[in-house]
Amino acid sequence: MTLNRRDFLKLGAAAACAHPVLNAMAAGQPPNVVMILCDDLGYGDLGCYGSKIRTPNLDRLAAEGARFTHFLSANPVCSPSRAALMTGRYPTRVGIPRVLFPKDTTGIPDSETTIAQVLKAKSYKTMAVGKWHLGHLPQFLPTAHGFDEYFGIPYSNDMSPRPLMHNTETLEEPAKLETLTPRYTEQAVRFIEKSKDSPFFLYMPHTYPHIPLAASERFRGKSPLGLYGDVVEEVDWSVGQVLETLKKHGLESNTLVMFSSDNGPWFQGSPGGLRGRKGMTYEGGVREPFLARFPGRIPRGRVCHGLASMMDIMPTVAKLCGVPLPKNPLDGIDIWPLMTGQKEELEREAILYFDNINMQCARWGRWKLHVTRYNSMAYSPAPAAGRINLPLKQPELYDLRIDPEEGYDVAPEHPDVVAQIRGRIERLVEGFPEDIRKAWAETKAKSVADSAIGAVPRPAKQ
Amino acid sequence: MTLNRRDFLKLGAAAACAHPVLNAMAAGQPPNVVMILCDDLGYGDLGCYGSKIRTPNLDRLAAEGARFTHFLSANPVCSPSRAALMTGRYPTRVGIPRVLFPKDTTGIPDSETTIAQVLKAKSYKTMAVGKWHLGHLPQFLPTAHGFDEYFGIPYSNDMSPRPLMHNTETLEEPAKLETLTPRYTEQAVRFIEKSKDSPFFLYMPHTYPHIPLAASERFRGKSPLGLYGDVVEEVDWSVGQVLETLKKHGLESNTLVMFSSDNGPWFQGSPGGLRGRKGMTYEGGVREPFLARFPGRIPRGRVCHGLASMMDIMPTVAKLCGVPLPKNPLDGIDIWPLMTGQKEELEREAILYFDNINMQCARWGRWKLHVTRYNSMAYSPAPAAGRINLPLKQPELYDLRIDPEEGYDVAPEHPDVVAQIRGRIERLVEGFPEDIRKAWAETKAKSVADSAIGAVPRPAKQ
Repeated sequence: MTLNRRDFLKLGAAAACAHPVLNAMAAGQPPNVVMILCDDLGYGDLGCYGSKIRTPNLDRLAAEGARFTHFLSANPVCSPSRAALMTGRYPTRVGIPRVLFPKDTTGIPDSETTIAQVLKAKSYKTMAVGKWHLGHLPQFLPTAHGFDEYFGIPYSNDMSPRPLMHNTETLEEPAKLETLTPRYTEQAVRFIEKSKDSPFFLYMPHTYPHIPLAASERFRGKSPLGLYGDVVEEVDWSVGQVLETLKKHGLESNTLVMFSSDNGPWFQGSPGGLRGRKGMTYEGGVREPFLARFPGRIPRGRVCHGLASMMDIMPTVAKLCGVPLPKNPLDGIDIWPLMTGQKEELEREAILYFDNINMQCARWGRWKLHVTRYNSMAYSPAPAAGRINLPLKQPELYDLRIDPEEGYDVAPEHPDVVAQIRGRIERLVEGFPEDIRKAWAETKAKSVADSAIGAVPRPAKQ
Repeated sequence: MTLNRRDFLKLGAAAACAHPVLNAMAAGQPPNVVMILCDDLGYGDLGCYGSKIRTPNLDRLAAEGARFTHFLSANPVCSPSRAALMTGRYPTRVGIPRVLFPKDTTGIPDSETTIAQVLKAKSYKTMAVGKWHLGHLPQFLPTAHGFDEYFGIPYSNDMSPRPLMHNTETLEEPAKLETLTPRYTEQAVRFIEKSKDSPFFLYMPHTYPHIPLAASERFRGKSPLGLYGDVVEEVDWSVGQVLETLKKHGLESNTLVMFSSDNGPWFQGSPGGLRGRKGMTYEGGVREPFLARFPGRIPRGRVCHGLASMMDIMPTVAKLCGVPLPKNPLDGIDIWPLMTGQKEELEREAILYFDNINMQCARWGRWKLHVTRYNSMAYSPAPAAGRINLPLKQPELYDLRIDPEEGYDVAPEHPDVVAQIRGRIERLVEGFPEDIRKAWAETKAKSVADSAIGAVPRPAKQ
């Protein structure tokens, strides 16, 4: 049974008082939002995406809501991907175009507005539990950007000194790796329980399956797919605990629960047969699982093939919760019509991919235009370092509808599509900060130089 | 209907004389052998392997014979892969462990015996048509290694000056790229026609789909998968012409036709969802399509999941044709029982993979043990240059049965398998030349150094 807002209002106060959810909704309480994120989880790493890793709770989430097959991270590495999630904007606009390291003294600027901050317009209680990675100095931590509370490691688990923090204080250093998922879960459950009478936003970016991998004893050695499998199965257990808590307190039907990951798999994990991995702008580096459940509003078992981006979370949540959008221009769009099945595809601008400040490629509908070739150091431990952007003299066009692996360049056969996307890139870049515009101009200048890689002679099409 | 040799003998001379094939077989004429090879064709690039590239002739070859799903090139780049095919031995034994360039003055040594040479024991007519890549100086060309005739470019089409040769003479320089597939085909057809009354061996290593890609006018712009698709469709047409010629002259039923490629796809093409590409020892760099047809002897439509290697072609052909094996010890085994379905899997040693002279990993049944991590420069134009072998402190074990993408290291869960494969590596390497033994000793020494990549702490299994 699906009740809309008007139905609830018709039910009247008496009925509403009998049930906490009806109570909340009749009182016009905006929905709660739970966003669970993994770190370096591949497109092929969940049961509901074809993996042999056992993820019954995430599979249930998919069965009770929508599962996306073309949901794209805004960047193939951690910090920029998260910057886009939190702000609804390109990481290159936010000023976080690359991975932040403990020696960095930068982070998310005050000029940006996070999802947590927009929700404050309706007095949401907000908590971030897990890996933040948008700056570890006090002024960049979640508590300085709209979150009432923070618990977690402020950056990746392979970085030192790896403090486990509560708000701005260090609880433990280095954090014990095998305790992280259970402790994050405990914090998430506690937050939901204490916030259940007001709208809340829980942002839960797990530390795993980023390396070094660690699982608690009850999960270690249990998956047929090794420690990576164990770790993902423990994250799945954690999702189950969160869902159980929502159910226990009658919050399920007024809560949007979303699940995704920041970028593709690194050394371990499966990109689900797609080309490339973490650090690369081929689909394997950026396409992610994305699940969204809102009982009664998002149809059960929906599979959405429409294009969506991590940058869409901000505007979608803001619209759903009825709060004003931030003053900064957004790059994401409201994908509620995709989630609910009102639409199968949305009109939208090309989606640009950068390596640091350098344009790599653009996705536009079924097409992907690569303007540089990425000389991957993705298998080194520092994916942000040592890369070389190799401007292509002739951009390469891939038709993901018939070529999901990005294996067959069809640029010469579709000059109109190439021109269309190039035009869109030009117009979009005009609105970007100067460093991006300058880098793009340099890329174009280099791409006509004879030394450019990819300058293999190709016969003109006749 | 399947007739074995004894059946034919029973038919007697009268019946035999009525048909040229029966004639040949009754006379005990050994089978003809046709080995067609592509260059940089991916595991996922043929229709019969799931591609949208249209390859009706190769699909028919598969339908009329056996299609392999675990056929492995002996190396992920051209020259060593071909050295193994021609000799049945590891390229590291043959002395061709890396790609040869036009400036190189080395090639296949006289101490090696090629398939063409062993077949000379039964007076086979032999021809190589296409890309040789085992040395371009006269003493290394096919005509110096068992082939009566040679027509083709002696190395890759992206190398200069790119001569098109007939035997040891240059016909054209640089060879016109778009004419190659038709001219190779014409030569192959001519050779079959002139050799039809004696046993023959046609080795046809196509230049394509190695870059720079080129197709003749009738194929250009025809495939929905771009120029790469056009080029593969033209190779498929060529295969059709060869098959048609065999049929026309009644040679089909006494000819073993095989098809494969030297290594995985490079910039373009599909590894069929496997990890890695050309130049990498992940499956995407080494697993290849392999088709084998021998009407009446290899069952129609057989799909073989048993493990096979490019090094197996030599012993299989020698056995089938009844000629003595070369004096050098072989690393391949006779896979006729796999082709024919007598067996689904053969007992065999671990298969080692090298990057130049450095051990990378070993395949043993369903398992693959990576002992170094490959820091790929595979996207640069010179795949043999700039690579770094990064010895892993802890080798990584992949179970291809449940993890075809090599995404989940299960070494800690299977110490027995790791030990088993390491032991096999040690025993095998003892029989290798000194440079290989020395490189392996250095790899092991490095792998215990703290600086080794992959030395991410991993909790001990409890």
